[in-house]
Amino acid sequence: MPLQISDLSDAVLHTHYAVRGPIVARAQELEDHGKEIIYCNIGNPQALGQKPLSYVRNVLAACERPELLKVANHAFLDDVREKARYILEQSRYGIGAYSESKGLRFVRAAISEFIAARDSHDGVAQASNPEHVYLTDGASKGVQTALRLLIASGNDGILIPIPQYPLYSATITLYGGRQIGYYLDEESGWGLNEQLLEDAMRRAMKEGIRARAIVVINPGNPTGSVLSEDDMRMVIHFAKRHNLAILADEVYQENIYKPGLKFISFAHLMSKIEEREVSLFSFHSTSKGFFGECGQRGGYMEVRNVPEEVIAQITKLQSVALCANLPGQVLTYLMVSPPVAGEPSYRLFDEERNAILSELGKRAKMMEEGLNRIPGIHCQPIDGAMYAYPSLSLPAGRTDEEYCMTLLEATGVCVVPGSGFGQKPGTAHFRTTILPPTSQIEHVIDAIAAFHLQWR
Amino acid sequence: MPLQISDLSDAVLHTHYAVRGPIVARAQELEDHGKEIIYCNIGNPQALGQKPLSYVRNVLAACERPELLKVANHAFLDDVREKARYILEQSRYGIGAYSESKGLRFVRAAISEFIAARDSHDGVAQASNPEHVYLTDGASKGVQTALRLLIASGNDGILIPIPQYPLYSATITLYGGRQIGYYLDEESGWGLNEQLLEDAMRRAMKEGIRARAIVVINPGNPTGSVLSEDDMRMVIHFAKRHNLAILADEVYQENIYKPGLKFISFAHLMSKIEEREVSLFSFHSTSKGFFGECGQRGGYMEVRNVPEEVIAQITKLQSVALCANLPGQVLTYLMVSPPVAGEPSYRLFDEERNAILSELGKRAKMMEEGLNRIPGIHCQPIDGAMYAYPSLSLPAGRTDEEYCMTLLEATGVCVVPGSGFGQKPGTAHFRTTILPPTSQIEHVIDAIAAFHLQWR
Repeated sequence: MPLQISDLSDAVLHTHYAVRGPIVARAQELEDHGKEIIYCNIGNPQALGQKPLSYVRNVLAACERPELLKVANHAFLDDVREKARYILEQSRYGIGAYSESKGLRFVRAAISEFIAARDSHDGVAQASNPEHVYLTDGASKGVQTALRLLIASGNDGILIPIPQYPLYSATITLYGGRQIGYYLDEESGWGLNEQLLEDAMRRAMKEGIRARAIVVINPGNPTGSVLSEDDMRMVIHFAKRHNLAILADEVYQENIYKPGLKFISFAHLMSKIEEREVSLFSFHSTSKGFFGECGQRGGYMEVRNVPEEVIAQITKLQSVALCANLPGQVLTYLMVSPPVAGEPSYRLFDEERNAILSELGKRAKMMEEGLNRIPGIHCQPIDGAMYAYPSLSLPAGRTDEEYCMTLLEATGVCVVPGSGFGQKPGTAHFRTTILPPTSQIEHVIDAIAAFHLQWR
Repeated sequence: MPLQISDLSDAVLHTHYAVRGPIVARAQELEDHGKEIIYCNIGNPQALGQKPLSYVRNVLAACERPELLKVANHAFLDDVREKARYILEQSRYGIGAYSESKGLRFVRAAISEFIAARDSHDGVAQASNPEHVYLTDGASKGVQTALRLLIASGNDGILIPIPQYPLYSATITLYGGRQIGYYLDEESGWGLNEQLLEDAMRRAMKEGIRARAIVVINPGNPTGSVLSEDDMRMVIHFAKRHNLAILADEVYQENIYKPGLKFISFAHLMSKIEEREVSLFSFHSTSKGFFGECGQRGGYMEVRNVPEEVIAQITKLQSVALCANLPGQVLTYLMVSPPVAGEPSYRLFDEERNAILSELGKRAKMMEEGLNRIPGIHCQPIDGAMYAYPSLSLPAGRTDEEYCMTLLEATGVCVVPGSGFGQKPGTAHFRTTILPPTSQIEHVIDAIAAFHLQWR
């Protein structure tokens, strides 16, 4: 008899990943039948018209085919040629061979330098160990490795924010762990609240769950909030008090739009307060920021305050599927070692970066203001990341799943219901990206407004 | 307190992946200290000098940077330009955007056509459903998805050949399943033997293990054997009798060296005998064959005889980490739709392919004959794949682990002990790849011969 659905584990069956769930499947069906769909369900910038950075693609093309540096010499600026040659030389075999399980050494070294430079401020001289850096296929794979390590029994729990990015809930379920939701405080712009963290912890203890780690997404997905140093400090003390590791999802670190706000990494703050007892896993990606290279799956995980014997276990886990893809590793290298002022590629690189980031800032503002103009929809400030997560006043008994599905059918706008990210009981939300071009954002807002006013 | 080794699960701690284990770590240390190492531990052709195919890299370079088709038009043949344009058009957003979770549709369609063409022979008109094809980051990730699906409880077992490729043992342990080893028959060139399969099944039942699937690696890793149709038919009947799914690891399907031998896929044979009750997961990769593109992590999994509701579960699992990397997806597309006679790229493509495959055939023969000339070492015929797995006569009480570690220290030749792949109690083996260039193979054999004669 063929494999049946009844043969599968509860862990598989109960895994739920809303960002690509039934609403998106329905959107694809509608699109196949000729309906125009605006995909606001997923942070996929190049699918909504964002151009890849010229510098990055030029180097990657030369790495794929080094002969181009000879036969089409004129098509590459000097620093692109040098960078590609350096990569090919340092990788020894080019991008067609497996690398070490952790990833190419020179890339890990460059990541450590990037972290040290980024985090050496405010009186802190930061250092990072390249042997504690892992190249991953996007940040997702790094998160999964960390969760694999931390969930040792069906009783082990991971604190995740509510709302959260569903990679976390899905992976925790799939790995047979327990999810411990802690609420973010919508009224204060989705801020952290120590009381809400302790509440979550108490509930977990009552259920006999052993909490192992806390996930913090900063800037926030889906919330768009950016953490203050005080909130981060509070989280570190909380983690220490309860013997938790911290998983710091920092993939939106370049995506901060509110003037005056600055990204602070957990690695920086933990160095600043000389915290060496709390294990830290931080994640970064080439899919977000201004690269937006989602398809090429680059990213890294840096691990701190973890003994060498645990590092060896992580390396072993990485080795089972051999290594992260090499184009993604090269991309990650380019992210952490971009052209600098004076190099031939710098001017265009800088222009393209600034254009993308200021455009994203503009779209965040348009989305926030536009949604807030709709009676019955309320959106907190979008200070960072790539999403809006507005609350909806819905008629009694109706759910945001129904709302989003009907919105899709009526307007072609594809957003994801709040139920996929988690929310306080009795509230309703959806997540939309801020990624459509400005002309489309207006259309999206108008469509939602018209829909919202008549939906019952 | 930081995360401790005692916090980790037994599943993590017991996972063992020999191909990148302590011997390889030691090899890297020695290399860092200036010793010349010949890495025969892993099938990584480009690290041992195999050149990537020009056609493939030209198309990939153009996909990374489409402007090259204009600014360096002369550097691309007509069919390369067309192919790249087709890929960019069909993918809609190029290679920088996430694709569908299953992978790009046109790539899946091309894979289905490839399978149908490959498998339509011997009176069988084969068909393949693109909706049952999944693009994966190398074959490894596909294998892991299938095992994730099949291991539903700590009592679920997977039959794997002994010797096997340690991806299987490692993943089964990591996912908390039970490994059921079935011996291959060394004396008959590592053939399959129904009695040995039934023995394994009986042992499993006695231990209360519920067998869920059988893994077959054809051509064999590490054995180099190629299955006959009769053996495959026996496996299918065995699987049906015991209600097992089949995992067909067919990544070496292009690597058959013995004249007259032909690759037969499980999909073909199951169509031929009209078997519709046995679920089949088959795997292919761009890392082996004559592409050897290990670093770019391309591959696919095709699923058969599985109900649609299970297909939906597989798609959900794939979606949690978004999608396979797009350069790898493009590479897989090129593997299944190579240039054809008459196209401008064909001649060089064909030359490069034939040169690689005939070179690999030559190396397989050299390795087999060379090892068999050493008294106390016996190697079965290397009919396919990329490895030799000779048996060793060792002094009483000595292990192949010690042997390989000492061989490495003495000669710089890095091979993997039989204990990492599994072997009959009381026997000793190592696995070496056949990949070093011919001049190095002679050196490897001489080094092993000299070492073997004096090692006590």
